[in-house]
Amino acid sequence: MTQLPILLQGFQNQSPTHQAAQGDILEWIAAAHARAELTLQRPDSEEAREALTRKLKKLVLRFGCSTDRISARGAFLDDFTHTDWDRMRIFRLNEFPSGRPCGERSRFYGEVCGRVFESFYTDELEPPPVIMHVTCTGYVSPSGAQRLVAHRGWGRSTEVIHAYHMGCYAAMPAIRLAAGLLERGKARVDVVHTELCTLHMDPAQHQPEQLVVQTLFADGAIRYSVSRAEGPGLELLATREEIAPETTDAMTWMVSDSGMQMTLSRKVPDYIRAALGPFLDDLAAGAGRTAGALFRDAVFAIHPGGPRIIDELAEHLGLRPAQVEASNAILRDHGNMSSATLPHVWQAILADAAVAPGTLVVSLAFGPGLTIAGALLRKAG
Amino acid sequence: MTQLPILLQGFQNQSPTHQAAQGDILEWIAAAHARAELTLQRPDSEEAREALTRKLKKLVLRFGCSTDRISARGAFLDDFTHTDWDRMRIFRLNEFPSGRPCGERSRFYGEVCGRVFESFYTDELEPPPVIMHVTCTGYVSPSGAQRLVAHRGWGRSTEVIHAYHMGCYAAMPAIRLAAGLLERGKARVDVVHTELCTLHMDPAQHQPEQLVVQTLFADGAIRYSVSRAEGPGLELLATREEIAPETTDAMTWMVSDSGMQMTLSRKVPDYIRAALGPFLDDLAAGAGRTAGALFRDAVFAIHPGGPRIIDELAEHLGLRPAQVEASNAILRDHGNMSSATLPHVWQAILADAAVAPGTLVVSLAFGPGLTIAGALLRKAG
Repeated sequence: MTQLPILLQGFQNQSPTHQAAQGDILEWIAAAHARAELTLQRPDSEEAREALTRKLKKLVLRFGCSTDRISARGAFLDDFTHTDWDRMRIFRLNEFPSGRPCGERSRFYGEVCGRVFESFYTDELEPPPVIMHVTCTGYVSPSGAQRLVAHRGWGRSTEVIHAYHMGCYAAMPAIRLAAGLLERGKARVDVVHTELCTLHMDPAQHQPEQLVVQTLFADGAIRYSVSRAEGPGLELLATREEIAPETTDAMTWMVSDSGMQMTLSRKVPDYIRAALGPFLDDLAAGAGRTAGALFRDAVFAIHPGGPRIIDELAEHLGLRPAQVEASNAILRDHGNMSSATLPHVWQAILADAAVAPGTLVVSLAFGPGLTIAGALLRKAG
Repeated sequence: MTQLPILLQGFQNQSPTHQAAQGDILEWIAAAHARAELTLQRPDSEEAREALTRKLKKLVLRFGCSTDRISARGAFLDDFTHTDWDRMRIFRLNEFPSGRPCGERSRFYGEVCGRVFESFYTDELEPPPVIMHVTCTGYVSPSGAQRLVAHRGWGRSTEVIHAYHMGCYAAMPAIRLAAGLLERGKARVDVVHTELCTLHMDPAQHQPEQLVVQTLFADGAIRYSVSRAEGPGLELLATREEIAPETTDAMTWMVSDSGMQMTLSRKVPDYIRAALGPFLDDLAAGAGRTAGALFRDAVFAIHPGGPRIIDELAEHLGLRPAQVEASNAILRDHGNMSSATLPHVWQAILADAAVAPGTLVVSLAFGPGLTIAGALLRKAG
């Protein structure tokens, strides 16, 4: 008997509570940076306060991700809907220029995560065999997954796995691990991403790279399942993961004083480009293909780490705009939702009637290490 | 061709830099709690200062884990070797009554973790196919595993997986995930636990449950490999994981303002006991055994979550002292090293000539959820 293929299917995303146009977001972030710096410097004249405010707005607009590449972004936190700093839950910048320390951010994360899991499973009566919770933006136990399982009385049927702190590429190890659990007898693994990137903004950090990060990242939540099944869905053909040489300090992500902190070198796209040739050769070979054939015919689901990366990789690999359309669209409509981003791209490719069944989907994502993670998928009809 | 069994083998632990007798640890912790409270209250007479110091020492000695169950504990942080608070890296309690906030703890964690990984792989020339890094006490990327792989030039051969924030039971999901990766073609998965529990102590928290936690937990680092192989080692026969009903708030673990914070209800042993019967029936059945036979013949590797849990489960299940000897010995000699503890118990059972090859090993661990995780292993000669 031939085994059915491993299929990713049943994609469902949840929109964060608050959606805002990128232009409005840039205004809010500019105001937050000004407020943080006013709290730190406490200038005594109205003139000095206005000058500082103008200076920070100019900085944010200069280095922040512009509205031509990101049009909207979602967030779960009410703070972003107003600038009454005394009423903020996290960004009480009159008192804490970096926002409140980690504890309150964790509590908020836990609350949102609990609601998101409940909402994803409202209509489901049968316990899933495994829920794999993926995040790099909130570490709270019991997790939303564990609370759901306890609340629904699924504790003797559902195993919970945390696949945490792998960064933007985490959907890739998640599907590799899920595929392994299928081989060990689990009928289905649900993968649920809950990323609250905006929660970790630090408005007292005005360096250009921090302004890029703060205006690029967004919140996102999505679930899908991995099982041996027939289409529609994305068949898993091959996976590959590498750590690029001598790039250890190019990207970092760690728990810090006021939320989690990222550092990001401008050279990341160069490092990725340098490692990508052999990487794609090996990924293609894992499914009996050649990279050349993929460049010609496949759709590329590229994690939109930043505005440059999709353009640069598309140019480097000689891809047509249509081949990276879904990646650009998700960046434009949602921003970078860390590990939740690539599954949104997959969902868009599945929903796009212009992508014919049988089309190969090269998926690429990047994170600290620098880790380059890839999967070769095929759209199944 | 019969497949070889899945085997856990090659256990190697690393002792933390500083080992101390539990009596000395209790003295240090009492001094730290007094110093934290002096910084908070700033009493103005020598008499008031002495009274406060005496009061906190009494509290720590009353509620802290006594020297009759834990004799020694290891830690990587130099702070624990002296009480010159101005010279502390984390516990600069003259200034920060809870110790410094999360950022510096993360940096220290990252440094130690880097050294521990380098040391585990000093003599190894061949890249392992997979390194699975397990921790719930430090979230820093690139991780020690990623840094090692980059530094050794193993980036195109070794995949790194982070299995983070699952708490004390994390060795169990780690071996389930590792077993799955073997089925997907990986020849070997190395599992490396690095837990720096002592880094998260908060000497400004004097509640009895916090005093138990602070005097119970210790640092630990251990590695082992999972592959299809022949003995010596521990064969994996069955696994099981459950979330006990209505115990969501009995244990919590999250990133907080000054490191990570745990809460622990005194009822945890009762909750575990209540769920254990059906759990063990199902675990045994997974390998074609009965729980009754295990109670009679197996060795029990029980995560020593606290001083009470081993005694209470042994009594509840009718076990003989010899059946839980390794669990008690690891608690006595090392304290609770979170997820690193159970692998230390496994290592001790493998090394113990009194445990004959063929002996079944019931492994149990607990964490937030409440999650009860189990594995049935067999000592292979």
